[in-house]
Amino acid sequence: MTDDITFAVLGTGGIGRRTLEVSQHKDGVTPVVACDRNGIAVDHDGLDVDELLDATEGNIASEERYDDKAGAGDTTGNDGGPVTDGGTAVKQHGEDAGVVASAQAEPTDSPIQDVIDETVAEGVDAVLLALPNLEHDFIPNVAERFADAGYDGVVVDVLKRSRVIELLDEREAMFRDAGMTFVCGAGATPGFLTGAAALAAQSFVDVESVDIWWGVGLKSGYEDNRGTVREDIAHLDGYDIETAREMTEAEIEALVDEHDGRFEFHDMEHADDVLLERAGVCDAADVSVGGVLDVHQDEKPTTTTVEVTGTTFDGETATNTFELGDATSMEANVNGPALGYMRRGVEMNRDGRAGVFGPAELMPGF
Amino acid sequence: MTDDITFAVLGTGGIGRRTLEVSQHKDGVTPVVACDRNGIAVDHDGLDVDELLDATEGNIASEERYDDKAGAGDTTGNDGGPVTDGGTAVKQHGEDAGVVASAQAEPTDSPIQDVIDETVAEGVDAVLLALPNLEHDFIPNVAERFADAGYDGVVVDVLKRSRVIELLDEREAMFRDAGMTFVCGAGATPGFLTGAAALAAQSFVDVESVDIWWGVGLKSGYEDNRGTVREDIAHLDGYDIETAREMTEAEIEALVDEHDGRFEFHDMEHADDVLLERAGVCDAADVSVGGVLDVHQDEKPTTTTVEVTGTTFDGETATNTFELGDATSMEANVNGPALGYMRRGVEMNRDGRAGVFGPAELMPGF
Repeated sequence: MTDDITFAVLGTGGIGRRTLEVSQHKDGVTPVVACDRNGIAVDHDGLDVDELLDATEGNIASEERYDDKAGAGDTTGNDGGPVTDGGTAVKQHGEDAGVVASAQAEPTDSPIQDVIDETVAEGVDAVLLALPNLEHDFIPNVAERFADAGYDGVVVDVLKRSRVIELLDEREAMFRDAGMTFVCGAGATPGFLTGAAALAAQSFVDVESVDIWWGVGLKSGYEDNRGTVREDIAHLDGYDIETAREMTEAEIEALVDEHDGRFEFHDMEHADDVLLERAGVCDAADVSVGGVLDVHQDEKPTTTTVEVTGTTFDGETATNTFELGDATSMEANVNGPALGYMRRGVEMNRDGRAGVFGPAELMPGF
Repeated sequence: MTDDITFAVLGTGGIGRRTLEVSQHKDGVTPVVACDRNGIAVDHDGLDVDELLDATEGNIASEERYDDKAGAGDTTGNDGGPVTDGGTAVKQHGEDAGVVASAQAEPTDSPIQDVIDETVAEGVDAVLLALPNLEHDFIPNVAERFADAGYDGVVVDVLKRSRVIELLDEREAMFRDAGMTFVCGAGATPGFLTGAAALAAQSFVDVESVDIWWGVGLKSGYEDNRGTVREDIAHLDGYDIETAREMTEAEIEALVDEHDGRFEFHDMEHADDVLLERAGVCDAADVSVGGVLDVHQDEKPTTTTVEVTGTTFDGETATNTFELGDATSMEANVNGPALGYMRRGVEMNRDGRAGVFGPAELMPGF
């Protein structure tokens, strides 16, 4: 249905790198730009992903730091990126750290601005923001910088926090003016499972509850996904996004040991709730998200499920269920959907539909 | 995301009537035209659905016969409708049969043409074709008549047969020229379950198999759904669409008794296969559809499930599963999705995207 799509990846931590990898298995999606905090790789005929992945191994997300100036709309008072890193890089390869170790890359002090310049100048179809979002307005502000520069393509992110959607909505007029199509929360949850909930709701005229329960085993991927783990810790009782951001790697390790590598989450502030509400499926309050993360094993500690309970037009109450096979990794369930939603976003964008859209709005209407 | 949508229902058998009923539970979808073989009801401010439903109770699908002239593209040699009925109406109410018993309706000899005229003249957003399709080219030819008349809205159908998609594809250029957006196979299966399969595939880079298995209990809805049952019988070993069409109601009753009301189907020619292939999810040959129909009980004889087995980018094989609650009726699972896909179709149409689209093409891209 779509012609070839070119895309840029902003951030080459766990999610960015896996998206590049998954895109190699997909027809018609070509990565042309990738960056990390120190460098940018550009090839408008398509990046050599294998070479780049080798070079970027070890760019753990919690260690990324983007220091180039934020756009006019930046209200954080910092310079456009996470202000702490709280960790040290591991598994760095090559003489230089990260992307710059690639033969395709150049060093830069302003990776975000460089990506913006490249995507605007070359008309790159889509940008995947695979950046840690340990400050709520970081992703919204980066998106704003794209709009500000007149980028009229698609921006996709895999953010998680409900309150970030509001910050995107505040910028929607600006995105629309630029002709930009922002698909937000397009990873696993929110993302894949939000879409599944919206689809499962189609049996019903009234949705009572949506229960999302995820399992992630991350032993072999732990080093790559420290940024994700840090974001998850912020959902634990007694922690919030500020305290999690300020933790040192040693403190996080101590917490991991204390929990024997296993964290159970309930009533998480995952954007599935507001994304289902904005699609008209149910009230945000009817959505609950929880799950179990185990960084000491690769097997999922629990099966990922979405249960949608509702009432049919003929007055019956029932529960539709979507269940992911236990052998599907978090990475598979984030990056496949991110590219899938990106494809739909590009179609919408080419049809002139700009603005902010959640995954559930890309499903059949409710 | 969408503004109010007006729609017409062509056919007020089981599916047409239930769609009208479900639409009453939905915001922003307003039925404005409905017809059956003898009459047409029009109210561009919104039909009084309750009144119409009372009036049309008993319009069983196998008894419907549309005799108005087919359009220029009609190659069937008949007059635009099923040539046999093979049954007698039951539960007819009112002085006149069907829609004409409604205070909102007028009798007509050319219901399809009248709906075309109304929808074109008034710019009705969408048309649901809830007609039996016991001849493969009936639905395609009706759609062609809309395009021929310059209808530039959305046409949705709930057809089942794989080979019909080809007939629609042959007409795609004509639909595009008219600016018409045709969403085909948008009921339960194909439709709801096809979409679920396309979404479930997002974990994988390669899909090995899609297994759709449905259960339908139809005791209380049997009279309303004789057309559907007749279409299902055509999938049994030893039957085809021609033999099923020629059967009398008495012959069908005898077959039902012989099976004690219960039919099991395997390797059905359901369009899920070609619709998943055209969305790039897998080869049509990798899709299997089967199920159990019981017309002697309302409880589902088996649980409706979709199993998608594939390989992830990291080399794991797994199965994702979508399961419908047993209390969701066939009617709920056909009509909710039909309206849901209609909403998305209207968005696409308003964005200028015309042509033929299956449910899987309205999902995140694969």
